[in-house]
Amino acid sequence: MNKSMNSLIVDCDPGVDDAIALLLTFSQHLPLLGITTVAGNVPLPLTFSNARKLCALAGQPQTPVFAGCPRPLLKPLATAEDIHGATGLQGADLPELLPSQSAIQSQHGVDFLIEQLLNAPKPVTIAALGPLTNLAVALIKCPPIAAHIDQLVIMGGSMTQGNITPAAEFNMYVDPHAAQVVLSANIPTVLITLDATHQVLTTPERLAAIRAIGNPVSTAAAGMLSFYGQNDVARYGLPGCPLHDPCVIAYLLQPQLFTTRRVNVTVETSGEHSLGRTVVDWYGEGKGSTVQVVESVDAEGVYALVIEALAAFG
Amino acid sequence: MNKSMNSLIVDCDPGVDDAIALLLTFSQHLPLLGITTVAGNVPLPLTFSNARKLCALAGQPQTPVFAGCPRPLLKPLATAEDIHGATGLQGADLPELLPSQSAIQSQHGVDFLIEQLLNAPKPVTIAALGPLTNLAVALIKCPPIAAHIDQLVIMGGSMTQGNITPAAEFNMYVDPHAAQVVLSANIPTVLITLDATHQVLTTPERLAAIRAIGNPVSTAAAGMLSFYGQNDVARYGLPGCPLHDPCVIAYLLQPQLFTTRRVNVTVETSGEHSLGRTVVDWYGEGKGSTVQVVESVDAEGVYALVIEALAAFG
Amino acid sequence: MNKSMNSLIVDCDPGVDDAIALLLTFSQHLPLLGITTVAGNVPLPLTFSNARKLCALAGQPQTPVFAGCPRPLLKPLATAEDIHGATGLQGADLPELLPSQSAIQSQHGVDFLIEQLLNAPKPVTIAALGPLTNLAVALIKCPPIAAHIDQLVIMGGSMTQGNITPAAEFNMYVDPHAAQVVLSANIPTVLITLDATHQVLTTPERLAAIRAIGNPVSTAAAGMLSFYGQNDVARYGLPGCPLHDPCVIAYLLQPQLFTTRRVNVTVETSGEHSLGRTVVDWYGEGKGSTVQVVESVDAEGVYALVIEALAAFG
Amino acid sequence: MNKSMNSLIVDCDPGVDDAIALLLTFSQHLPLLGITTVAGNVPLPLTFSNARKLCALAGQPQTPVFAGCPRPLLKPLATAEDIHGATGLQGADLPELLPSQSAIQSQHGVDFLIEQLLNAPKPVTIAALGPLTNLAVALIKCPPIAAHIDQLVIMGGSMTQGNITPAAEFNMYVDPHAAQVVLSANIPTVLITLDATHQVLTTPERLAAIRAIGNPVSTAAAGMLSFYGQNDVARYGLPGCPLHDPCVIAYLLQPQLFTTRRVNVTVETSGEHSLGRTVVDWYGEGKGSTVQVVESVDAEGVYALVIEALAAFG
Repeated sequence: MNKSMNSLIVDCDPGVDDAIALLLTFSQHLPLLGITTVAGNVPLPLTFSNARKLCALAGQPQTPVFAGCPRPLLKPLATAEDIHGATGLQGADLPELLPSQSAIQSQHGVDFLIEQLLNAPKPVTIAALGPLTNLAVALIKCPPIAAHIDQLVIMGGSMTQGNITPAAEFNMYVDPHAAQVVLSANIPTVLITLDATHQVLTTPERLAAIRAIGNPVSTAAAGMLSFYGQNDVARYGLPGCPLHDPCVIAYLLQPQLFTTRRVNVTVETSGEHSLGRTVVDWYGEGKGSTVQVVESVDAEGVYALVIEALAAFG
Repeated sequence: MNKSMNSLIVDCDPGVDDAIALLLTFSQHLPLLGITTVAGNVPLPLTFSNARKLCALAGQPQTPVFAGCPRPLLKPLATAEDIHGATGLQGADLPELLPSQSAIQSQHGVDFLIEQLLNAPKPVTIAALGPLTNLAVALIKCPPIAAHIDQLVIMGGSMTQGNITPAAEFNMYVDPHAAQVVLSANIPTVLITLDATHQVLTTPERLAAIRAIGNPVSTAAAGMLSFYGQNDVARYGLPGCPLHDPCVIAYLLQPQLFTTRRVNVTVETSGEHSLGRTVVDWYGEGKGSTVQVVESVDAEGVYALVIEALAAFG
Repeated sequence: MNKSMNSLIVDCDPGVDDAIALLLTFSQHLPLLGITTVAGNVPLPLTFSNARKLCALAGQPQTPVFAGCPRPLLKPLATAEDIHGATGLQGADLPELLPSQSAIQSQHGVDFLIEQLLNAPKPVTIAALGPLTNLAVALIKCPPIAAHIDQLVIMGGSMTQGNITPAAEFNMYVDPHAAQVVLSANIPTVLITLDATHQVLTTPERLAAIRAIGNPVSTAAAGMLSFYGQNDVARYGLPGCPLHDPCVIAYLLQPQLFTTRRVNVTVETSGEHSLGRTVVDWYGEGKGSTVQVVESVDAEGVYALVIEALAAFG
Repeated sequence: MNKSMNSLIVDCDPGVDDAIALLLTFSQHLPLLGITTVAGNVPLPLTFSNARKLCALAGQPQTPVFAGCPRPLLKPLATAEDIHGATGLQGADLPELLPSQSAIQSQHGVDFLIEQLLNAPKPVTIAALGPLTNLAVALIKCPPIAAHIDQLVIMGGSMTQGNITPAAEFNMYVDPHAAQVVLSANIPTVLITLDATHQVLTTPERLAAIRAIGNPVSTAAAGMLSFYGQNDVARYGLPGCPLHDPCVIAYLLQPQLFTTRRVNVTVETSGEHSLGRTVVDWYGEGKGSTVQVVESVDAEGVYALVIEALAAFG
């Protein structure tokens, strides 16, 4: 790890790539305080149950999982079943949860975030894999939490083409207002945009390597990754689907696989064609910015990490 | 009352006119579950302590008062010390609170709103006297609360001139995004705009009548109203300062003093010159709208109610 | 006249109320250099031929009439056949023009404006009765013309409700970008909004008085005014249709019938719900503004002028 | 040429790279009807005189040059003296024009465009090297001209970073409203963005090759290119300054040096941070679009063309 991580909260909307990111988190025994879920790739009831199913799959059913916000701040919810399937985890045949298998939390995800941040003995790391609604609402309710975040690593945004509109990446587009709240909160932040994640592709060779592992977790992962984002592959003409969210966990585990640049970033909340665009001042001085945007990524290294992690499951 | 009110929460940012509204609430023994406070006329620490001081002034120190959001959803906070004075209650000499005199609540105002709405045996009435941040965050965290609101009466908006920009009224301008969240939530809502409140003026005669009551509460009220909004009076060329927030409580007490029209209302969140404008389709059919905008008000009746209420204090 | 008018250009989109305004212009022998037409109430081919038909009706077929811009700067054209009928002059049975009866000009309306303004010995008055596209394009092509405009009197805008959207008046909404170009050009301007023109109603009594005149021009006028804006009357619950454009000519003839206030005005070109809104800083100081907005109008006086003018035709 | 070009109008704002583009045009004896100038890199009086000086430099003083619009449609003019120098052609020591040396045209550039397009026996090619104000105003005045444009090749826009704001390229940013008018006019258009022109760099080797030619024109070109955009070079960390506008003429001469993709393009006219952004739907189907965006460019080929052209001057 880039530095000793004190503790970690993963905020996510599983989602296939969230699933791989969570499996990576579990495999590497990161100091996970809990998982908060949000509406995004699929509606909240599914992201909430999917997160718990993934804990069970990984043999960590006791991980606290929290349901957060079921809607963006202002925009109507947009989802991405075309990419992740109707359940959000299409391709994996995960069993329904028994009550005894998962720790259902009644606390709201937003309040778990606030409580943990205010009470943790040392600043907390946050991995943000979905729309930033939960973290934005936490910051609006209780702005002082910003000072308790050690590092925030976000998957989202694009400096070139978007993937949900020509201008915007999905996570930013689903809740652009939340994204702007978070990115303007002076939190030490690393932003991993599509420009980075489109370098980390699930090629047929890599998929075959995962399938070859042959344990239940890797089999589920291979199933999901076989389905995931096939229309993206066709659309972008890529040799495999970009593996977005696991890059966040990979960054936390091995930051040396990434290069970054300190820049100013704002999120467009009012444009007619640019809603949710991350406007990155790439050639500006970046003075005073707390945001680093990933510039390059060692895709081979990231994928090796993913494969190793999946193989570590029994 | 227009119908049997089950219970009431007042969400406010005292503020002089909020103060009069709270005194009216106490005097008339409305079934108050609690008071939530928000950043608005003055920052949250002041609105929170002001609300508690007013409870003490009214002889109701046990009223639960909650601090809500210290900032709007997206915009930087704008305040109105020019209207309300540096403390928010200039003109009244209210004693500092002793711990024993007030019930400080550790629960966040947003969570008090959600908890009360979800758990109340019957739908709750909400009087919203400030920026709508608290209610918006509650709706984002937990959308089902909308169905538990019996009636929401809001002071805010304008169909003619604004009072903080040419287009926008202060409460709507401070948090236009929150206002749009609330006004689009299909809650039975009555909106009392500047067009109504500018009819309810604190004329010298009315102020003299309050001062003549001579009890401690009316003396404090007269002190505040002597200071309150004198620059507004000069600016608008009015014979007295508009008494905005008490109209909300007056509406709850005596709706027959008001006429309303069912119309569609949206809040502008993206215009260059129109941010926070309440766009009211006054001549539209209003079908399907859950919002009624006040069309006329019996100012004499409202002010008589205020004076009677202040006189009822010992 | 408020001051000696040197010469006049009427820019219009007839349109029934434009028609009455033109008849008023002719009857009073204003020093008319020419008429420019624009797309607005109906498309340009109709506003162009309607203007020429009205010249013929008024016995002034030699008046130079110019076709200007057939489209707004950016927005797709919106028209108002519901108010003015399919021809733009519904209710009048005006004969088709013979070539010998009208002076068809090949010069573009925009260039006529520029040429006249640059070459007139003294500054020119402009009466603007439609969307402001022509004048805006002229100002963009040749900004120095602004200094050659003695006075610009515009019908457009609203400080309360719009008539094409809840926020916007028709002329401003059709070309909000043009309106902003014109209103920011530091031209001595009088703006006559809906707030003024909704005071000048074609009541049944006034319509009867026009019909009773009995000359061909008044008969045509009565026919048009019988049809004009009947749905507006129903919608607004007024005792007659507002007579918008003639107020501009009435202001030029008898400014003492109007009171005005010097204020800052901007036109919203980017709001989601406010496009075309005239944002008027009614209570601001107005220092440095070159725009006066009409505050009140002597409707009886304006209508007396209209009736007198129609009666003056043989 | 990609196809037989009937005739050409160059609309420009010289500017150093416009200058090289004009020299390329002259050297290759393209069928030039005239040059229209617009405010952009420097104000209109300078772009107008610079264009005439360049005609003289190239030995073509009789070329008709027209002054167009001195301002954008709505935005205040922004210029780029930091890139082009105070005169717009810094680095070249061009003599002041004698009246006998240049054909000053009194016709407005917009009207020259309209007249030529309406009257040319065959559709005309337009090379647009600056803000698109002239062409937009021409289209607003007279929309039918669109059908008389054989091909419009524009330098402007960006799909990655802008060069005047993080989101926008200079020509699009200076007049985003004009750009949107032009790009939505269904004209067969080729858009050469920064993504292409940043591949065509004035490296020290290329600059030395130009200087080595040693004729007066190449000496002036070398002088200008020595100064031009040095801060851009530093900012972007490039081995030389991008040569934007000559790419347009190179495309007309040797389109095989470029690959393009048919896509939908809109220009953002309302965003807070995205004003002037060209929103390109790169992965969309592009059906029905009349716009092709350049995807790749043979920079060596383009620069060879430039050097050959400069060498052809005596």
